[in-house]
Amino acid sequence: MSENHYAEFSECGMKPQDVLAYVSGPVPVPAEGEVLVRMMVAPINPADINFIQGVYGVKPVLPHSRAGLEGCGMVEESRADGFRKGDQVILLRGVGSWSELVAVPAVNLMKLPVAVDPVQAAMLKVNPLTALRMLEGFVSLKPGDWIVQNAANSGVGRCIIQLARQMGVRTVNFVRRPDELREELTALGADLVVGENDEDVVKSTLALLDGKRPVLASNAVGGESALRLMDMLAPGGSMVTYGAMSRKSIKVPNGFLIFKGIRLEGLWVTQWLKHAPAQDIAAAYDKLARLMAEGSLVQAVDTVFPLSEVRRAVEKAQEEFRNGKIVLKMNEA
Amino acid sequence: MSENHYAEFSECGMKPQDVLAYVSGPVPVPAEGEVLVRMMVAPINPADINFIQGVYGVKPVLPHSRAGLEGCGMVEESRADGFRKGDQVILLRGVGSWSELVAVPAVNLMKLPVAVDPVQAAMLKVNPLTALRMLEGFVSLKPGDWIVQNAANSGVGRCIIQLARQMGVRTVNFVRRPDELREELTALGADLVVGENDEDVVKSTLALLDGKRPVLASNAVGGESALRLMDMLAPGGSMVTYGAMSRKSIKVPNGFLIFKGIRLEGLWVTQWLKHAPAQDIAAAYDKLARLMAEGSLVQAVDTVFPLSEVRRAVEKAQEEFRNGKIVLKMNEA
Repeated sequence: MSENHYAEFSECGMKPQDVLAYVSGPVPVPAEGEVLVRMMVAPINPADINFIQGVYGVKPVLPHSRAGLEGCGMVEESRADGFRKGDQVILLRGVGSWSELVAVPAVNLMKLPVAVDPVQAAMLKVNPLTALRMLEGFVSLKPGDWIVQNAANSGVGRCIIQLARQMGVRTVNFVRRPDELREELTALGADLVVGENDEDVVKSTLALLDGKRPVLASNAVGGESALRLMDMLAPGGSMVTYGAMSRKSIKVPNGFLIFKGIRLEGLWVTQWLKHAPAQDIAAAYDKLARLMAEGSLVQAVDTVFPLSEVRRAVEKAQEEFRNGKIVLKMNEA
Repeated sequence: MSENHYAEFSECGMKPQDVLAYVSGPVPVPAEGEVLVRMMVAPINPADINFIQGVYGVKPVLPHSRAGLEGCGMVEESRADGFRKGDQVILLRGVGSWSELVAVPAVNLMKLPVAVDPVQAAMLKVNPLTALRMLEGFVSLKPGDWIVQNAANSGVGRCIIQLARQMGVRTVNFVRRPDELREELTALGADLVVGENDEDVVKSTLALLDGKRPVLASNAVGGESALRLMDMLAPGGSMVTYGAMSRKSIKVPNGFLIFKGIRLEGLWVTQWLKHAPAQDIAAAYDKLARLMAEGSLVQAVDTVFPLSEVRRAVEKAQEEFRNGKIVLKMNEA
């Protein structure tokens, strides 16, 4: 390749499609300790949208910020130990995955332990890890335990269903379109799929749990939806928040904390990736990549766009009802 | 004594003074394993008010419920091992402390390890233990750490100030009347006393902490006040809620959980007393009773009423600005 294409923005904007540009530039040259990666696929996550809007926990360095917080590629040229041409890698840290070619410090890359379909591998970093940390990082779950989640049809939600099933943990899954999604989520391993807006949904759902209550609630919505999760939790249970799709604060009745003894925590894998021991990170991705390779952990894809149509792709990624992730394809494998 | 007097209610009421009665009845006879206690002093806590209102975590058994969740007395007659006439005891569990005489299962009593002023001892069970659990049960505090609390002039708040000082932990104390209370709370050991309603109070207070932030927030208010505490907390810090004086839910911005990584928990010592190992409970009260006996842990008293004036006392206990606890005196020592 004699030139490189990538997505860039020079100012933040609440409509990322209005500030993003598809630009061309020189092929990057890896420095000592860096690896040149030919990117294959990258997803468009809510975090990517929020990053371009300037409302994410990580802020862009302007006036020339690349976009894209995760993705999968092949090593084109390595100037670092442990990597060689043809290795399949994912970006662990840093931005710029919406590029044909990127030069990346080796520490920001992870080589996959097994060959994984590039579209699936592109989505390995954030959602599956979020789901794994949700299930392993807060409450000690035993087979037969119940957990409850909202946004169950999201990327993370679907991973939680699949990983919980592997652990023998049962899931109550709140979605906005239960009738449309029940069959699909049940096929992934969901035990109960219930409607966010059904009347008396907390009471009617609890009646189905054999007298048990969920010990963990996974919250990606906030607002009223989070209140329902807290209401369903067992005394002493935890609600862990990793997203805020409703953009509404969580209103916590004081009695839930004082008398019911529930606990509220947050989960942000970017933070975990910064502070966790390297061997814990490697072990988590090793497990997830193997599950992906054997087809036990599958993420849904709605539409694949070429990188040149990044603005249209970003617009589509913000539409309310999709049947999976919007992904960008940079190069063929 | 040939008869017994006590406070009783036959229905819950939002104005406890309207449903409470000062009644007389026979002297109780202790059963095998029980102890007859001549009550000396009992405080009127928010929990007592809420219990009579029917909005507390423990519900009264009607139509004849005694009132009073804590208090101190002397053993009059023992039919249980480990207690004998003249022992100074506090009620650990159960209701009915607003009585001249009560027959109590031995397991619900604790003998004090040292002689403690009866008025102070009467308030040992709830507030000092809440303060101790707040400081020992959630965050590992080191000398030099900062914590922040609202309702700093409350019974628990004053205990937190005194116990934190013993640990070398520094306190930011929110009150509604800072100018009036600064001298008194500073004398107890408060490092900073600031006004709940002062403009820009979070920013101006943080500027005084040498670049540090509180790692623990003690919340007894809820609403806006809790929001200020969360705002002040260090990343990864905990807000522990033990009261809800404002009667307003806690609104938690999602980013505080996800990006700042703060944690919300609840503290209810009644629950702790139910589940903690007996030796932990004994160790906690031993420590607190000794601090009380040596004068290092003092609770403020506003007014002492005789039990016969229980309705007037309860009314006074609900007034907004007091300078300490309202207590009932049943018998002289």
